[in-house]
Amino acid sequence: MMNETIINAKKAVRSLIGLSDAKRTELLLKLADAISSSADGLLAANALDLASMDPANPLYDRLKLTGDRLDGIAADMRKVAALPSPLGRVLAERTLPNGLKLRKVSVPFGVIGVVYEARPNVTFDVFSLCFRSGNVTLLKGGRDADNSNRAAVALIKRVLAAEGIDTDAVNLLPATHEAVGELLGATGYVDLVIPRGSRRLIDFVRDNAKVPCIETGAGVVNTYFDACGDLQKGIRIVTNGKTRRVSVCNALDCLIVHSSRLADLPELVGGMPQVTLYADDRAFAALEGRFPSGKLLHADSDSFGTEFMDYKMAVRTVDSLDEAIAHIDRYGSGHSEAIVTEDKASAARFQAEIDAACVYVNAPTSFTDGAQFGLGAEIGISTQKLGARGPMGLEEITSYKWLIEGEGQTRP
Amino acid sequence: MMNETIINAKKAVRSLIGLSDAKRTELLLKLADAISSSADGLLAANALDLASMDPANPLYDRLKLTGDRLDGIAADMRKVAALPSPLGRVLAERTLPNGLKLRKVSVPFGVIGVVYEARPNVTFDVFSLCFRSGNVTLLKGGRDADNSNRAAVALIKRVLAAEGIDTDAVNLLPATHEAVGELLGATGYVDLVIPRGSRRLIDFVRDNAKVPCIETGAGVVNTYFDACGDLQKGIRIVTNGKTRRVSVCNALDCLIVHSSRLADLPELVGGMPQVTLYADDRAFAALEGRFPSGKLLHADSDSFGTEFMDYKMAVRTVDSLDEAIAHIDRYGSGHSEAIVTEDKASAARFQAEIDAACVYVNAPTSFTDGAQFGLGAEIGISTQKLGARGPMGLEEITSYKWLIEGEGQTRP
Repeated sequence: MMNETIINAKKAVRSLIGLSDAKRTELLLKLADAISSSADGLLAANALDLASMDPANPLYDRLKLTGDRLDGIAADMRKVAALPSPLGRVLAERTLPNGLKLRKVSVPFGVIGVVYEARPNVTFDVFSLCFRSGNVTLLKGGRDADNSNRAAVALIKRVLAAEGIDTDAVNLLPATHEAVGELLGATGYVDLVIPRGSRRLIDFVRDNAKVPCIETGAGVVNTYFDACGDLQKGIRIVTNGKTRRVSVCNALDCLIVHSSRLADLPELVGGMPQVTLYADDRAFAALEGRFPSGKLLHADSDSFGTEFMDYKMAVRTVDSLDEAIAHIDRYGSGHSEAIVTEDKASAARFQAEIDAACVYVNAPTSFTDGAQFGLGAEIGISTQKLGARGPMGLEEITSYKWLIEGEGQTRP
Repeated sequence: MMNETIINAKKAVRSLIGLSDAKRTELLLKLADAISSSADGLLAANALDLASMDPANPLYDRLKLTGDRLDGIAADMRKVAALPSPLGRVLAERTLPNGLKLRKVSVPFGVIGVVYEARPNVTFDVFSLCFRSGNVTLLKGGRDADNSNRAAVALIKRVLAAEGIDTDAVNLLPATHEAVGELLGATGYVDLVIPRGSRRLIDFVRDNAKVPCIETGAGVVNTYFDACGDLQKGIRIVTNGKTRRVSVCNALDCLIVHSSRLADLPELVGGMPQVTLYADDRAFAALEGRFPSGKLLHADSDSFGTEFMDYKMAVRTVDSLDEAIAHIDRYGSGHSEAIVTEDKASAARFQAEIDAACVYVNAPTSFTDGAQFGLGAEIGISTQKLGARGPMGLEEITSYKWLIEGEGQTRP
C-alpha cells in the first residue's frame, strides 16, 4: 500500500503542468514576501528544534534560523523567480522525409524527492527550484529540524492555497526511517530522489533507492602542482581552494605536489598557517621547520580520500603526472580536480583523463558552484554521470519528451 | 573483493580516452570484416547453444545466428562506424567576468554494463555503440547464449589486440547470478548499467542496482481515438501501430476509443482481423457480429497494462479526454502514447499532460526508434527520466564534464 502523501504528490504533477510561467514566478515572489512577514512563526518553530539540541553540536548552527537568514532565503527565492523558465525549451527538432515533425522539448521530471538533514533553509530552497521547474516537491527532512520544516511547509501551502494552486505541490514526509524507505521504493510515483547531506546519507539513499537517484555533494577534492607549475598562481589557487570556505564540498582536501617542486612546497602552503597538514614522508621532510610545527603531521592511511570539511589538508608527493592522475582516480570522488601547470600538454592530458564533474587548469576548485557557472542557483552538485553532472540548476532538474506530429503517416 | 574483470574494465577507461576517433571507426570496420570472415567459428559456437535448447522454445529463433544474420550485424556495425563522433561536443561555453573560461564537453560514461538474455547479436551491437562513444563494455549475457557470446567476445578481443588496443575494452562476465550481483554493486567501477530484455530482468536490475541504471524497453503502448478523430487516419495509425511488428516495444497494446465514436470502431479495427481483441463491455457490444467472432473476447483485469508482444490488443471505451489521459497514467509505461484527433486543443493537452518519452498526434507509435528519430542507431529505449529518455543512440550514452581554464584567478 503506497503512502498517501506520495500518491497525492503524483496526482499534483498534472495540475502543475497547467500553470503558466507567470503564475509560477508570481507564487515564488508572494512566498518570498510571506517568509519575511511570517518570520515570527518560523523562528518560534525553529526555537523548539533548537531547544532539543546541544548548542555545542556542530549541527546547531546549520539548524538555526534568524531574521537575517530568513531574509536571505527570501532573497534567493526572488532570484530563482527571476531566472528564465527551464521548461518548453526545444532541444532538437527535425522533420522526416514523410512530413512527420519531431520536437524534443524540456519538461519537468514530475515528483522530485529530496532527503536532507538538519538544515531548514533547504526546505525553501528546494521548493523554489522544484516549483519553478514544474516539479512537485516531496521532502524528507531530519528529525532535528522537524518543527522548522513543518512550519515552512505549512507556510508554503498557505501561499499556494491563496493563489489557487494545488497544495500537494509540496509535502513533507514524516521524519521517520519508514518514510525514507517508502520514498526510495516508490517506483512509478517518484521520478527522482536527490539526497543532500552527509556521505552516510548519500550512500544510504544510493544503496536503497529503487527510484532513480542522483548522488550529490561529497567531494574529495585534489589539486596537483605540476613540475611546470607557476608558484605564484599555485599559492593563490591552493590557498583559495582550501581556505575560502572549508565546510563546502568544493574545498580542497589534498595537495599533490611533483617531487621536483618540493623545495617550493613551504611557500606553496605558506599562506595558510591555520591549516593542519597531513604530509607524506617526502612532503613532511620538505616542510619540517618551515611550517608551524603543531600544524604539521604525518599522513596516515586515512589522510587521502577524506573530505575534511575543516582547516585540514593532506599533502602527497608524486614523481609524474601519471602518478598524480592515478592518485585522483583512486581517492577522488569525481567532484572537482585541479592542475597548476604552464605545460599545455600536461594540462590537456589532465583534463582529458581525469574523470570528474569539473576539471580545472590554473584555477581553484572553489569556483564549482551553480551561480558561478551561470546556472543562477543550485539544488546540489552531482558526482555521478547519469543525468546532470556537476552543479545542478533549474535546467538540470528537467527531463524531456519527444513530441511527434503527423497526418496519419505510417511506417513501412 | 571486487571481481577482477570489473577492475580491468575500469582500468581500460583511460586507455580508450587516448584513442583517436579515426582509430575507433577503423576498429569497427575491421571487426565488421572479421565477423563475416569468422562466420564459421561463430556459427559453430552458436550451434552448441542451439543444441541445448528445445527448438519449440520461443527464444530459439532469437538465439539462432545464421550467415545472413551475421552479415546484418556487420552491416549495422559499419553504420555505427559512419556516424559522427558523439565525443568532444561543446554543450555550453562561457567566460566569466574574471576571465575564467568554462566549457561543458561531452565525454564517455566510462564503464557501461549491459545485462541481457539469449540474443547473441546484442553482444556485437552493444560493443559497437559503446566503443564508438569511448565507453568500456562490460557484458553479462544469458546462460543459454554463453558459447555464442564467448566466441563473439573472443573475436572482438582478437581484433582489438591486432590493432594494439586494450583488449579490456570489452569483457564478458560469467553467465551466473553472482556476476550480475557484482556488476550491479560495483559502485565506483561501473558508471551505468542498462538491462535489455524481459520486464522481469529490467525489474531485477532496477531493484538491485547500486550503480546508476536506465530502465529500457518495456512498453505498454496506448492510442486514443478522440471524439474528433479522423477515421481514415485512425485506421492507418491503429493498424500500423499494432501490426507492423508485434514483437517490438513500440507496438500498440491498447486502443482507447471515445464513446461517441463506438459506431466507427468496427471500421477502425477492421484492417486487422488477425488480431485478437480484449474489449470492454461497450466496445464488445459495438464490435459483436462485426469482427471475427473467435477473435473478439471480453477484457478482464489483466487486459490493460499488458505488453502483449503478440497479435493481441485491448480496447477500452472512455467518455472524455480526461478519462483517456487517466487510463494512460494508470496503465502506460511511459514509452509511447498517441492521440488521433483533429481538435488542436485536445492534441495540445494530450501532448502536455501525457508523461511518456514519445507522445504522438495523428501518427502511429511504430516510429519510436533510434534510426527513425535520426539517432543513427539505438542501444535501447529509456522509459525513465533521469539521463536519456526515449530512443538512445550514441550521444545518449555519453556524459559531460566541465573544463575550466584560468590564470590563477581566485573566488572572493
